[in-house]
Amino acid sequence: MPVELTWQELALGKKLAVLELIPLEWRLPQPIPTAKSQKDVTGAYVQQYLEDWEIEITESDAVRIVEQTSSGNWTVTKVVTAFCHRAALAHQLTNCLHEIFFDQAIADAKLLDEKFASGAGPVGPLYGLPVSFKDQFHVHGVETTMGYVGWIDTFEGIKGTGKEKTTESELVREIRLLGGVPFCKTSLPHTVMSMETWNHIVGSTLNPHNRLMSTGGSSGGEGALIAMRGSPIGFGTDIGGSIRIPAAFNGLFGIRPSFGRLPYVGAANSMPGQNTIPSVCGPLAPTARSIKLMMQAALTQEPWLHDPAVVEMPWREELAKLSTDQKLTFGLYSSDGDVNPLPPVKRAMEKMKALILEMGHEIIEWNPPSHARAYKLAFEAFTSDGGIDIHHHIGLSGETLQPRIEEFYGKKAVPAKTVDALHRINLDVAAYRKEYMDYWNSTSALTKTGKPVDAILAPVAPFPALEFGKSAIVAYTPWVNTLDYTAVVVPVTTTDSTIDKFETEYTPLNDSDRIVWEEYDPEASNGTPVAVQLVGRRLQEEKMIALAELFESALASK
Amino acid sequence: MPVELTWQELALGKKLAVLELIPLEWRLPQPIPTAKSQKDVTGAYVQQYLEDWEIEITESDAVRIVEQTSSGNWTVTKVVTAFCHRAALAHQLTNCLHEIFFDQAIADAKLLDEKFASGAGPVGPLYGLPVSFKDQFHVHGVETTMGYVGWIDTFEGIKGTGKEKTTESELVREIRLLGGVPFCKTSLPHTVMSMETWNHIVGSTLNPHNRLMSTGGSSGGEGALIAMRGSPIGFGTDIGGSIRIPAAFNGLFGIRPSFGRLPYVGAANSMPGQNTIPSVCGPLAPTARSIKLMMQAALTQEPWLHDPAVVEMPWREELAKLSTDQKLTFGLYSSDGDVNPLPPVKRAMEKMKALILEMGHEIIEWNPPSHARAYKLAFEAFTSDGGIDIHHHIGLSGETLQPRIEEFYGKKAVPAKTVDALHRINLDVAAYRKEYMDYWNSTSALTKTGKPVDAILAPVAPFPALEFGKSAIVAYTPWVNTLDYTAVVVPVTTTDSTIDKFETEYTPLNDSDRIVWEEYDPEASNGTPVAVQLVGRRLQEEKMIALAELFESALASK
Repeated sequence: MPVELTWQELALGKKLAVLELIPLEWRLPQPIPTAKSQKDVTGAYVQQYLEDWEIEITESDAVRIVEQTSSGNWTVTKVVTAFCHRAALAHQLTNCLHEIFFDQAIADAKLLDEKFASGAGPVGPLYGLPVSFKDQFHVHGVETTMGYVGWIDTFEGIKGTGKEKTTESELVREIRLLGGVPFCKTSLPHTVMSMETWNHIVGSTLNPHNRLMSTGGSSGGEGALIAMRGSPIGFGTDIGGSIRIPAAFNGLFGIRPSFGRLPYVGAANSMPGQNTIPSVCGPLAPTARSIKLMMQAALTQEPWLHDPAVVEMPWREELAKLSTDQKLTFGLYSSDGDVNPLPPVKRAMEKMKALILEMGHEIIEWNPPSHARAYKLAFEAFTSDGGIDIHHHIGLSGETLQPRIEEFYGKKAVPAKTVDALHRINLDVAAYRKEYMDYWNSTSALTKTGKPVDAILAPVAPFPALEFGKSAIVAYTPWVNTLDYTAVVVPVTTTDSTIDKFETEYTPLNDSDRIVWEEYDPEASNGTPVAVQLVGRRLQEEKMIALAELFESALASK
Repeated sequence: MPVELTWQELALGKKLAVLELIPLEWRLPQPIPTAKSQKDVTGAYVQQYLEDWEIEITESDAVRIVEQTSSGNWTVTKVVTAFCHRAALAHQLTNCLHEIFFDQAIADAKLLDEKFASGAGPVGPLYGLPVSFKDQFHVHGVETTMGYVGWIDTFEGIKGTGKEKTTESELVREIRLLGGVPFCKTSLPHTVMSMETWNHIVGSTLNPHNRLMSTGGSSGGEGALIAMRGSPIGFGTDIGGSIRIPAAFNGLFGIRPSFGRLPYVGAANSMPGQNTIPSVCGPLAPTARSIKLMMQAALTQEPWLHDPAVVEMPWREELAKLSTDQKLTFGLYSSDGDVNPLPPVKRAMEKMKALILEMGHEIIEWNPPSHARAYKLAFEAFTSDGGIDIHHHIGLSGETLQPRIEEFYGKKAVPAKTVDALHRINLDVAAYRKEYMDYWNSTSALTKTGKPVDAILAPVAPFPALEFGKSAIVAYTPWVNTLDYTAVVVPVTTTDSTIDKFETEYTPLNDSDRIVWEEYDPEASNGTPVAVQLVGRRLQEEKMIALAELFESALASK
């Protein structure tokens, strides 16, 4: 008779099994320094464990990597091995991985090299590029737990389906066809409905720039891994900010495409079938041009022929080109009026504002239909099943629900809403979208160009990366999901305790605002990245990436 | 104290008020011949009440009309007046209208003529084109009842909203901007969930080719009006076949675009907020090029900037052009294996098949995932609210529900499904779409071109226009809605009692099949139109219209 393991033992077993997959020579000397004793593990710190060639490769962005592999300067094996090594280090320092399949990836790399050596040339626009995936994506030969203890040894929580470790999500399949090499899957909060990355298997994922801080969520593993340069690019998902918050907290570019632009089919999800405000997938990377390369490449696969939810819309290069004399207009959304941005975020917004004006573009105040209303609608949609899905999967193992998530989903499921009530929510969402659209159109009367604004400039969160346990306000991101708009995150600066001082004279707007204000600790936050988001209309991926590139280069020349 | 009217009196009052709007000189001599004594009221029959210039105008298609108005050969007033006259005749003979606003339309026409005379030229690509709308669309100054007695003197069933007769649906607004002239709204079954057009206000809408027969539904008023040439083009909606069935029964072209191609925002609907399998709007017209003109024109308005559900996808002329030597492949779906097509439909399919082969194209058998499964999913989606919406609106007046609709929605509402159950339906729909897509892709292994099929050739219904009260089998259309595919209806022939004889030797497949077979009466059906549908993938409007044009001209040269 098999021994019945507790869920804690199952979780620990999984955690250890993943750690076991790290080759001995890549393991860090024990004890690994505590977060307090070594806050920042990026840059010089992690480099000490790497050889020069590994540093050169892993600190190249996706575009340079593909150039080097495609020209034969770097073998794919070399590239993939270097990233596997650095990912292994990243995981030991930040808990950012959920699944490791380095052997499989290096074997795939060898096959690509052999093909190349035989004169076949590079196989695609992502030739030899290592790509990481949030642990919602299925990869052949590898498990998916999505952070649920109850999913260990199952397929999405069901035992004996025959699908365990044998299926691959459409996106993964397409990345392979493009020449990409999947090599690891990254951590996330169980349920994916949290801006902190924590689960019973992997524990907390730490912010590599400051390990006392959260890496954000729910695509927090991607954020930490890529900030560590343990992956050049990876895919997260975003239902309420889950790509953008980790991108911002880790100083990365990230895009939340509109629904139907990239293939999500065949990936695991929470509340699958919830289509009022659906989750989307998108890449995070250290450079804007990496995001562009990935989006362009993904669309060459014609995902609309493989995922029924994808719209037939090839990459539109004409939208991705901004003429040098083009006057742009931005809607400035400085605060939601509920929780004001803290000094580093305020400074990042001011910096962007000054840059925009200096570049000769225009800014108008953005006074749209209430974002609080958008937030409420998102909340209603996400809880419309009464938490039945989430509590079912939590209940499979008996694990406890993360307290932050419990605030939304309760201690147990409640009766689901009825379909007629959901229809009313859908109608409210539709009405909100229409009002917002009309407001956006109306800005043509306010701009010098006589055209509506090109994008909204807004904070991603009122704070930079949070210390664990502090107020997790997710109010600056879900309106984009309710509207299904396209948003890119642009890293702007890092928190500087000598400038971003605590505002002693500040008068809080309300209790939430007071707590966020009080909790701000410039010393603790010092060195953490700060980003903004640029939000475009629905399905404006090309244009938003072009704007990200524009500001990336403008900020770099400062 | 106001006298309380019964719902029957209210309905009759509305019916008479609409008839009152027909100018005395356009009224037919009483008594109007019975359906039995004058089955066919198209062509020569209706022409007897028209002058030559009226006949010339009203028997021109949309393309010719716009040519004539735009070149100044015909004034808009002349065109609009001619169509108003003929629409008035059509209504008296078939009950096809729900709202008449000829005065407003003629006033609009005069304004357009004045502008033109002042040298402003034609205002848009639909300059001076009369356009009719199914009575789900709101038009300024005009009521919308959607066939519900309880909607009389309200806005969508609510009294005193201030929106009564003051709002306009987005599509109507855009048609005006394009130069089109709305002039009447057409009949539909209350609830729009029926393939027969009948309600307590207008009664039954008759098929103008054979007034003993149904005009189909739910866009039956459009079907009858356009077949009468009382409108050159009009908009219906399709949630399960409601554009295609009336197009087929009345010998018209019609398109069911994919969701998100044309603006639906601001129109009334049943089960609003139901987004599992949503309704779409699209035009019906006597020629394929009219449909093309309308789609092209509508997209120039950039509806994606005014309706959040519309995808940014301009007209793609490159998809609308078939090269003359292009080899096409069609998937032949002859029968659903449940109810076989009757002789006229079978002959239309055979005719199309022969034509395709004669043109040098290829045909393969179409053996897709079960269409019965698609039907079941559509039914589950449409009844997921327990019929609450429909019974609420029926209940406003106390009117009785059409028996055919009662078969689906019961005598009263039942408890709505819960959201978790709806999520499972959504997942089943998604899985079905993916399977169907994979099947479609797999046909590349079966075709001579090595490409997947270009379109599916299928019946619209197993019968031509039905006699009232006969078995209304709606099984050949909803699979397209479940898949959100693009379908065009192509009229092929008319029922000919000398060829399409009753099949005495036929062995029915089952009870439904037996009833349809037994009910077929070649004499009664004689002269009614027969059409097929060509079904393309999602958002393939340009290509499907090109195919409609191709077959229109090939059939005309036979």
